[in-house]
Amino acid sequence: MSHKLDLTDLDRDAATSLTAQLVERFRDAIDRGELGPGEKLPTTRALAEEVGVNHLTAVRAYRRLAEEGYVTATVGRGTFVRRVPPPAAADGPGDVSWQAAVLPEAPPSYPNQVLAQSLRLPVDPDAISFAHGWPDPALYPVADLAAATREVFDELGADTLTYSEPAGVPELRELIAARGREAHFASEPEEIVVTSGARQGLDLVGRALVSPGDVVAVESPTFMGTLTSLQRTGARVVGVPVDEDGLDVAALERLLARHEVKLVALQSSSHNPTGADLSDQRRERLLALARERSFFVLDDGVYATVRYTGGERPRLRAAAPGHVIYVDSLSKTVAGGLRLGWLAAAGPARQRLLDEKLAADMHTSTLVQHVVARYLAAGHHEALLAATNPIYRERRDALLESLRRRLGDEVEVAEPRGGHHLWLRLRPEVDERLLVAECLRHGVGAIPGAAMTAEPLGQAHLRLSFSMVPLERLDEGVRRIAVALRAVRRAQRQGLVAVS
Amino acid sequence: MSHKLDLTDLDRDAATSLTAQLVERFRDAIDRGELGPGEKLPTTRALAEEVGVNHLTAVRAYRRLAEEGYVTATVGRGTFVRRVPPPAAADGPGDVSWQAAVLPEAPPSYPNQVLAQSLRLPVDPDAISFAHGWPDPALYPVADLAAATREVFDELGADTLTYSEPAGVPELRELIAARGREAHFASEPEEIVVTSGARQGLDLVGRALVSPGDVVAVESPTFMGTLTSLQRTGARVVGVPVDEDGLDVAALERLLARHEVKLVALQSSSHNPTGADLSDQRRERLLALARERSFFVLDDGVYATVRYTGGERPRLRAAAPGHVIYVDSLSKTVAGGLRLGWLAAAGPARQRLLDEKLAADMHTSTLVQHVVARYLAAGHHEALLAATNPIYRERRDALLESLRRRLGDEVEVAEPRGGHHLWLRLRPEVDERLLVAECLRHGVGAIPGAAMTAEPLGQAHLRLSFSMVPLERLDEGVRRIAVALRAVRRAQRQGLVAVS
Repeated sequence: MSHKLDLTDLDRDAATSLTAQLVERFRDAIDRGELGPGEKLPTTRALAEEVGVNHLTAVRAYRRLAEEGYVTATVGRGTFVRRVPPPAAADGPGDVSWQAAVLPEAPPSYPNQVLAQSLRLPVDPDAISFAHGWPDPALYPVADLAAATREVFDELGADTLTYSEPAGVPELRELIAARGREAHFASEPEEIVVTSGARQGLDLVGRALVSPGDVVAVESPTFMGTLTSLQRTGARVVGVPVDEDGLDVAALERLLARHEVKLVALQSSSHNPTGADLSDQRRERLLALARERSFFVLDDGVYATVRYTGGERPRLRAAAPGHVIYVDSLSKTVAGGLRLGWLAAAGPARQRLLDEKLAADMHTSTLVQHVVARYLAAGHHEALLAATNPIYRERRDALLESLRRRLGDEVEVAEPRGGHHLWLRLRPEVDERLLVAECLRHGVGAIPGAAMTAEPLGQAHLRLSFSMVPLERLDEGVRRIAVALRAVRRAQRQGLVAVS
Repeated sequence: MSHKLDLTDLDRDAATSLTAQLVERFRDAIDRGELGPGEKLPTTRALAEEVGVNHLTAVRAYRRLAEEGYVTATVGRGTFVRRVPPPAAADGPGDVSWQAAVLPEAPPSYPNQVLAQSLRLPVDPDAISFAHGWPDPALYPVADLAAATREVFDELGADTLTYSEPAGVPELRELIAARGREAHFASEPEEIVVTSGARQGLDLVGRALVSPGDVVAVESPTFMGTLTSLQRTGARVVGVPVDEDGLDVAALERLLARHEVKLVALQSSSHNPTGADLSDQRRERLLALARERSFFVLDDGVYATVRYTGGERPRLRAAAPGHVIYVDSLSKTVAGGLRLGWLAAAGPARQRLLDEKLAADMHTSTLVQHVVARYLAAGHHEALLAATNPIYRERRDALLESLRRRLGDEVEVAEPRGGHHLWLRLRPEVDERLLVAECLRHGVGAIPGAAMTAEPLGQAHLRLSFSMVPLERLDEGVRRIAVALRAVRRAQRQGLVAVS
């Protein structure tokens, strides 16, 4: 301290008080940077002794420095130079440059960035987007939902618009539980919490069940939102590979031998992006492990009713309702922008999820909940699935055929059993981010594999979603990808770019 | 280690291998509790040396124990007894008792509990609820919203239901920014992020701007949701008193002298629960402090258009748009169950808030956003406020008059300048939670003061909301409170209950 700041020659006969002289010395030292942000000052007793002043004088000097914003003092910790400097006189009232000094450290999440970009549809009508795994708006049951909305307003009046319970409107939870009994994800309305889309359900699970420092296992690749919500809890998120039988449970067992895992996140049917199902044998083993090792299983079923091979499968949860948290929505079948999802859980975990739901947004829009309840009660949903699944299957088949024809051995791709996506491995190696950028230049969108994996795979992958692309445009999309791929390979051969 | 577990007499001639014998010793010690959860085991080298076996034997023993779920091993940290015991054989698949051992520590938040209870409306038609600060459903513009919904479906078709941008539908953000220019909370649509109610806006601010260990200052008393969202960030939440001129800025200055404060949360107009406004002098001082000391100001304006005295006031944000985050909604004026709110912010903070919005629920329901845009564009909103403010004022006046007549000096209450609430101090001292419980027994609901303060005030308070109670029922409600108050006082005098 004293080596930085000379306090030895205070003028005891000056017109200004000793307190004022001390304050000025410290102020100057802080302004000149001789005392840096966060630096600890001597205690008032040490200062008084060093300078040879009354203890009260030292106390007064520190108090004045605090009032002027130069230092902060905390009982039991001491007095410190403020970390955040006062603004420059030139900064106007709208200045935002100071924010960088105070905002929490938070490197932007690549999966969240890619997800944000994917919410922007291309403006160019000629563009072809394989980046959006959404249902085709041309297939939305708009008339059914408009009719349901009219009925709700007519019959419920103001009740359409009142606050409602955090868990959801009772009629809707009854209807979801009835679907849950058929699909084996729930048996009682008390297990259901209505959410603002499955995306919120995933986020609530992270908030309610995971703590900083926990280890969670996640399918890799997986949905960008799952990665983001688990990573932002401060947990260590470890990727477990996925193959044609779904999550590699043997790899999970190796992880379990090293770590106490809090939660395992997967999509046991119609996995995004591979379209694989978890095999029966692996399902049993996963649930046995969950019971033995006491971890939660987060099963995301948003694509579970979008099926091409083998029909809809019973969900995992019935076999271990105390361990499995099930998350689902109508965003991949009815309409993405409704933001109507739900989760199913039991025990204290369910109560925690409900507490988080209340803290997050009180409850999901009462209007939307009643509209969906009316729509489900009218029995339109099964007919919608029966009508749309064949249309998506046709697109899947056409895209697979076109990829084989135009790219042949350059892509490795499995036939998805459900869902809206193909997961492509590109061979020989190519820089996938460059490829995605080059695709955009050619008017075609895709999701880079790195946005969907917990750790870099070290191999180039793309997710292509076929659900929004009209049948007759699929081949043109693949043609553009092939052109982009050749351009990137050429540039790489010429040494113009390096594979990162 | 060795004092707990005798490993000295391994049988080197036995039929079972040394590895199996070691495994059994450890297993038994863990099962008997001699080695407790989380306890560190010796390194494999130390074990091998101690027992006099090959190093590989020790490695094999630990690997087997890990596979059986008895221990976990992490590179660089060592091998530990598992914290979560395997389930008892009797536990069925639906067992949830294990969850308590793995869920994060999270004492239930009293403000969140009270908020959850307040979302349940009384079933008994004779009950009178002063616990709900919501607009009266009888005053909802149901016909206007139904008409707006019909138009949206007719004109936009499937676009009513598609995914949209995380920041909100552009038309709605334009309309909110136009209101922002009049009310001084925003000037451009780029500053607006549409949220699922103001409740979500408050929660996003906590998520985006506050880190564990930060110090945040909050009006005390304040809205339960603000307390919950700030407390759950892991920050230290310090209450600052509120008087008839709003937040006590001198008290805030004393706090600033001790701490680097990250954020100050308040309602600068029509404060919940006191109904006070922040005086002009304090507004200026607060914003000067925000600039000098580089902290964010969270200004919650949900009641700012519900006015009885002095008309609507310009919001704080115009004078410091880089520092003030403004949060608002239509839940206190149009309809609570819509879940349509917004926030206004600038700079990196706005981008962080947008990232959090995307992670929380992608975006607010596209249907609801279009309906509200249509409703606002039709110009009905100003007429609604002009029609409903006098009705709420009449209820405020009647409730104040009834309290004075029936309780006189036993309550201290200020006349609110806006909002839906009265904040009562009860004298002489009484146990407020007992009083709230006794009120419920007499068919009248109220919010206990302790749910609205950062620290216990040490004085009994109640929040009474008059917005949902018909004019002719207000006096009966107060009569019941008076009866309940007398019953609690009598019990306290008789020593039957202690003031906690």
